[in-house]
Amino acid sequence: MLSFFHVGPEDPMNLTNHVFRLAARPVGMPKRGDWTYSEERVPELKEGELLVKTIYISLDPAMRGWMNEGKSYVPPVGIGEVMRALALGRVIESKNPRFAAGELVSGTFGVQEYAVSDGKGVSKVDTRMAALPLHLSALGMSALTAYFGLLDLGKPKPGDTVVVSAAAGAVGSVAGQIAKIKGCRAVGIAGGPEKCRYLVNDLGFDAAIDYKNDDLRKSLQAHCPRGVDIYFDNVGGDILDAVLARLARGARVLICGMISQYNSTGPIKGPANYRSLLVSRASMTGFLVFDYAERYPEAVRELAGWLAAGKLKSREDIVEGLETFPDTLLKLFTGANEGKLMIKVADA
Amino acid sequence: MLSFFHVGPEDPMNLTNHVFRLAARPVGMPKRGDWTYSEERVPELKEGELLVKTIYISLDPAMRGWMNEGKSYVPPVGIGEVMRALALGRVIESKNPRFAAGELVSGTFGVQEYAVSDGKGVSKVDTRMAALPLHLSALGMSALTAYFGLLDLGKPKPGDTVVVSAAAGAVGSVAGQIAKIKGCRAVGIAGGPEKCRYLVNDLGFDAAIDYKNDDLRKSLQAHCPRGVDIYFDNVGGDILDAVLARLARGARVLICGMISQYNSTGPIKGPANYRSLLVSRASMTGFLVFDYAERYPEAVRELAGWLAAGKLKSREDIVEGLETFPDTLLKLFTGANEGKLMIKVADA
Repeated sequence: MLSFFHVGPEDPMNLTNHVFRLAARPVGMPKRGDWTYSEERVPELKEGELLVKTIYISLDPAMRGWMNEGKSYVPPVGIGEVMRALALGRVIESKNPRFAAGELVSGTFGVQEYAVSDGKGVSKVDTRMAALPLHLSALGMSALTAYFGLLDLGKPKPGDTVVVSAAAGAVGSVAGQIAKIKGCRAVGIAGGPEKCRYLVNDLGFDAAIDYKNDDLRKSLQAHCPRGVDIYFDNVGGDILDAVLARLARGARVLICGMISQYNSTGPIKGPANYRSLLVSRASMTGFLVFDYAERYPEAVRELAGWLAAGKLKSREDIVEGLETFPDTLLKLFTGANEGKLMIKVADA
Repeated sequence: MLSFFHVGPEDPMNLTNHVFRLAARPVGMPKRGDWTYSEERVPELKEGELLVKTIYISLDPAMRGWMNEGKSYVPPVGIGEVMRALALGRVIESKNPRFAAGELVSGTFGVQEYAVSDGKGVSKVDTRMAALPLHLSALGMSALTAYFGLLDLGKPKPGDTVVVSAAAGAVGSVAGQIAKIKGCRAVGIAGGPEKCRYLVNDLGFDAAIDYKNDDLRKSLQAHCPRGVDIYFDNVGGDILDAVLARLARGARVLICGMISQYNSTGPIKGPANYRSLLVSRASMTGFLVFDYAERYPEAVRELAGWLAAGKLKSREDIVEGLETFPDTLLKLFTGANEGKLMIKVADA
């Protein structure tokens, strides 16, 4: 860790920031050397800007994609730019009339201690709805992704069989629980017996398949006797292929992510069983939560209601210390995290 | 050719049939030895049955799939069973009150000279709408497949860019022409300069890409500057991947077939670029024309109207002689056919 003399928020003009900037496009798994970690002076605010002190930084599989060059749904993080990340923080100075010092906010503040923002995409956080870190998990982008993907595109009907991959992860755990709330049969796929027990015993999934130890095809057959009506896919690869082989007629496959392929250095494995889309008259649809921005408040209210009613459970995997970022991020790709992964940078 | 003494329809009780029956599940390209070709006595009709003399037999890429074992949208043709095929024929005897001797009919009569049918799935053919063979092409299943896939699932809007693969084939040529009728930009992909000229000069496509000689990616970029809104895919493989890389936001990819993979002896090539479904918020949907059976009459009327108005053009590739079947079928997979491939078994 670099030496670091902490200056209190009472003197924002004289703050030192710690920042992870992208240094290289990773090949395979990202490594510490793909970023620089530097001390920088926090710049003076211009009119319309606010200064945010980061409290929790969200770590998401999508970050791996943002590090790659090439066309995607957002521009890649440029070499030398602050590593992009969603985060929660407190406004410590504001020249923006929408925000006041002391307010808690969420936004794309990046992997750094202090962020200067023009206020775009920043929203206030109401901790009466849920404790602060839950605004990155059960009420955050992960949950919103599960919410809009499953409900808007999956269109679950009571009795439908819903299979979720990476089901113990931040998005998958919410997708499966919403499926249950909507009267569906929820079958989770996760790695290891502990995660599988968690899905069934704590989150109320009807069944869980341990892809590391179970026979995936046989287990899908056993747990989805009438086929799969909705598949919420976070992983791609062999698991996507196995589920495609079990689709019910008219099934909806939702492509939320493909974490099994993000660090691949070889060619991407396309779903060889995509012919079953034809046999089953099924669809495979990609989506991005950002397209639903106007409906976030409505969704957050509904999620908060389920949370309060005990119908939606949330688990956070909180790692302390900004400087752990490169190693902590890898937990997503090795399957080591349990629940929503985030870094705690400072006390609230 | 086996020796064959032709008995006239005036004596249906004493007819000899010539039949292709499936003898083996093909590995790769089907070969003559995968069928038996035999002389058989036409059985006596039971109550409710009709006897049809085959005139034109439709050859379709789907036939390759019917020869494989395993789950599909219809049961496979069993070993020893008559090879399944759509066909047009004339009723020469009927014990079914819905049909009378002399009527022209279409149905799944199989690769044989005479078919005994219980009347299920058999419909009468009205040659005032179009000449007989066109009831397998512009007014047949090929055209209906294009019609329902493009219009019901593709939902084309004027100005959309519609790309069609195997565009000079029976389904693709109709899909592209309907796209034009609906005010879209139609870009066809076909093999060889002759087919490409045909698409643009005769069928009115806006552009054609010769996948055998052109740079597919560059050509797609040049001819689809605003991306691809609808991709009507008949081929799969590398062409599907190239088009996926050019999807416009909200694109609809229709999986009608995957002829590049039907005779593959290795693993199926899944679409490695399926991630662009996510980036482009696009969908990939499989469909089968049989699900639209109730709406066939409506569609045939509309297709016949376009045909009469000169807006829809049709080309038939008619090969004479039932016994050519194994070789003629291969034209579909080598790309040698031009237009709707069929065998003429007898005069009308």
